[in-house]
Amino acid sequence: MAFDAAAKPKTCIIGAGCSGFTMAKRLKDASLPYDCFEKSDNIGGNWYYMNPNGVSSCYQSLHIDTSKWRLAFEDYPVPGDWPDFPHHAQLLQYFHDYVDHFGLRETITFNTSVEDVADLPNGRYRVTLSTGETRDYDAVCVANGHHWDARTPTYPGTFTGYQVHSHHYRDPFEPFDFRGKRIMIVGAGNSAMDISSELSQRPIAEKLFISMRRGVWVMPKYMDGRPADKAVLPAWMPTSLGRSLAKKKIKKTIGNMEDYGLPKPDHEPLEGHPSVSGEFLTRVGCGDILPKPGIDRFDGKTVHFTDGTSEEIDAIVWATGYNTSFPFFKQDELTPKDNVFSLYKRMVKPGRETLFFLGLAQPLPTLVNFAEQQSKLVAAALQGRYAFPSHEEMDRVTVADEQAHLGHFYDSPRHRMQVDFNLYVRDLHKELERGAKRAQVGA
Amino acid sequence: MAFDAAAKPKTCIIGAGCSGFTMAKRLKDASLPYDCFEKSDNIGGNWYYMNPNGVSSCYQSLHIDTSKWRLAFEDYPVPGDWPDFPHHAQLLQYFHDYVDHFGLRETITFNTSVEDVADLPNGRYRVTLSTGETRDYDAVCVANGHHWDARTPTYPGTFTGYQVHSHHYRDPFEPFDFRGKRIMIVGAGNSAMDISSELSQRPIAEKLFISMRRGVWVMPKYMDGRPADKAVLPAWMPTSLGRSLAKKKIKKTIGNMEDYGLPKPDHEPLEGHPSVSGEFLTRVGCGDILPKPGIDRFDGKTVHFTDGTSEEIDAIVWATGYNTSFPFFKQDELTPKDNVFSLYKRMVKPGRETLFFLGLAQPLPTLVNFAEQQSKLVAAALQGRYAFPSHEEMDRVTVADEQAHLGHFYDSPRHRMQVDFNLYVRDLHKELERGAKRAQVGA
Repeated sequence: MAFDAAAKPKTCIIGAGCSGFTMAKRLKDASLPYDCFEKSDNIGGNWYYMNPNGVSSCYQSLHIDTSKWRLAFEDYPVPGDWPDFPHHAQLLQYFHDYVDHFGLRETITFNTSVEDVADLPNGRYRVTLSTGETRDYDAVCVANGHHWDARTPTYPGTFTGYQVHSHHYRDPFEPFDFRGKRIMIVGAGNSAMDISSELSQRPIAEKLFISMRRGVWVMPKYMDGRPADKAVLPAWMPTSLGRSLAKKKIKKTIGNMEDYGLPKPDHEPLEGHPSVSGEFLTRVGCGDILPKPGIDRFDGKTVHFTDGTSEEIDAIVWATGYNTSFPFFKQDELTPKDNVFSLYKRMVKPGRETLFFLGLAQPLPTLVNFAEQQSKLVAAALQGRYAFPSHEEMDRVTVADEQAHLGHFYDSPRHRMQVDFNLYVRDLHKELERGAKRAQVGA
Repeated sequence: MAFDAAAKPKTCIIGAGCSGFTMAKRLKDASLPYDCFEKSDNIGGNWYYMNPNGVSSCYQSLHIDTSKWRLAFEDYPVPGDWPDFPHHAQLLQYFHDYVDHFGLRETITFNTSVEDVADLPNGRYRVTLSTGETRDYDAVCVANGHHWDARTPTYPGTFTGYQVHSHHYRDPFEPFDFRGKRIMIVGAGNSAMDISSELSQRPIAEKLFISMRRGVWVMPKYMDGRPADKAVLPAWMPTSLGRSLAKKKIKKTIGNMEDYGLPKPDHEPLEGHPSVSGEFLTRVGCGDILPKPGIDRFDGKTVHFTDGTSEEIDAIVWATGYNTSFPFFKQDELTPKDNVFSLYKRMVKPGRETLFFLGLAQPLPTLVNFAEQQSKLVAAALQGRYAFPSHEEMDRVTVADEQAHLGHFYDSPRHRMQVDFNLYVRDLHKELERGAKRAQVGA
């Protein structure tokens, strides 16, 4: 199906984080009407520290692990005086500047959440707001983020110390003073790297353990004195060759994880979402961070590990990731289970070509400017410049895309939405051309 | 001159840090009588955190920047479960274990400092203790350390905020709470790297500046996934070639300092005592640490820099090094000026062959096990197994040694006692053989 451009379909955008407001800009540029609802009192989503919407997961020390060279929006340069890896406050300021520069702020309805999105005939949706109001739309863009519904695993027994998910972790002192405590971080992702590095410092933790069920490759922020993500492989290089070269380089640079006392990864570098830290490996090598295997069970403040050892722990930080959730959908097919949620171009469910999921991916290197790219397809579709292929073709492409983007990763809930940014964008541009031809033929 | 072995000369050892107690072990092994006086209530010197002698300069987070592979004593292995870069508390425990294992503790007089060392005829010394007692010795070993007399530069104007020398810095909270403060670290050595990294963390400093008068190369703790100091160059490689290869490797690994926003060093890597940090460059690259040039003047809490910029600063940490001081010597020739203190084999002033300076060097990689090597010459000399060459020859060798060890460094007070550990030990062993021949000829 293709939209009727003349009809100026009206769109509802859910959320005003970097996915939502770049989508808004695209629609504004295309002179297409939209409403953008933001639960919070301001833009920025996850990057709005202490966001009063209660679902931001910034901690105070957070720096993006993508260098400024790779996260910039296409049409709005990052400040010249930025460090290579900006702090969350700098990123948020950049978002504010973008939103103000393009006059988007007045198009966003703040302090208003979307409570329900119900199906109407003809691919239209009825949206119920937190104000009680309902509005009908021709299209809905879901940009509510996927790093807010904290996932905490459960184990036998009861832990009686303090515990917090990384989502609610703020700093070493507030709301819980970690100083002098025996701390355990659970997880092996970026938050686990950051928070274990921060709390393991001798003036803070009494002892700090990190419980990792499996080994990961911990990538540095810098390689050969340059931001590691700046070393883009040439586009002509076959992906498999590029990955093989990069693997060698990474292994040579960081060495064997087990030499640091960490578990040996059961996969090669780049076969899992990389954990990035400029600090973690050195802290492990200095004995500030003490590696432990998975948890077996709890007994009061005693944590028993799968290798039969145990430790007394005062405080646990669960850096165990997020569930993908859309609380406003009651439709079963729009309710992901274990983060399995296949989408055409990671945006569209065949049969629901008026419903777009934005930023619902784990792109490498970053999510910040990913929806800005995705929004090109959305705007083209709404303007009738892009027609979707058949449902069968969409399904076939989705399987092929997942193979290309995920095939080299080991299976885990963390790896169900991986996307190689550059590969995705190249494919998207080709697909926009194909869809434009289909739209002309169909018109 | 050579000692008469049969006479069993009696030695006074000043200090029971790692230089003093390894010297003591050497004399005990040689069945030579000695007294060892330690100002503090226990051994360890600088590595005794919160040492009540008031002259230890450990901070709570300090890890040695030398890997465990390079700091072990010859005859006492480091614990198998140590991390690569042990914490000061682990190093101190190793010292305690060594001292107890070899029965040295009971040979050390604690809570007793040497107040005066006066010349007696025939190369003997009269030592006055803090107890008021005087004792005469055939030889004196000076092992009082050279990281305790803090050097703080002065600048025009008055700074009215809090200031502390790194020597007295303990942790981010005590005795001064650095949280929420605008902080300036002055210096570019290891303490400057460590303390700026620690305090620059977003939950601690409001802003953190580092004032560096000149650029330095900041070496990582790990290179190619291995402790950087483990990559020993083969002994057969000419020093100049080895240095040239190492320079290339370092530059490739860490890149250009100015790319991080740091001042460009005016020397090549290895031409200055390396500053080592696994964290500093990443923190600069993340904007947590803000580089500034040298200080021009103070005006209340305003610091004016040599580039004309200024910043409001609440607290300064002077990580500006130490003076070499021997408060117990009144003799002018034993009073170093600006750390200039030439010594034969970094131990002996020609004409004073019964006075030995131990650990009075800045060896690369470490000072920890350096005096253990030096003590071989001392014991041999006291046993009559080693005879010194002529004063002219000692002077000639000293000039040649300083050229070999210091010639490639730029001149600064920090670089007047540099020693390449491996080179020093190779030369020392050859010299012991030469001195043994001289002793036989002279006997």
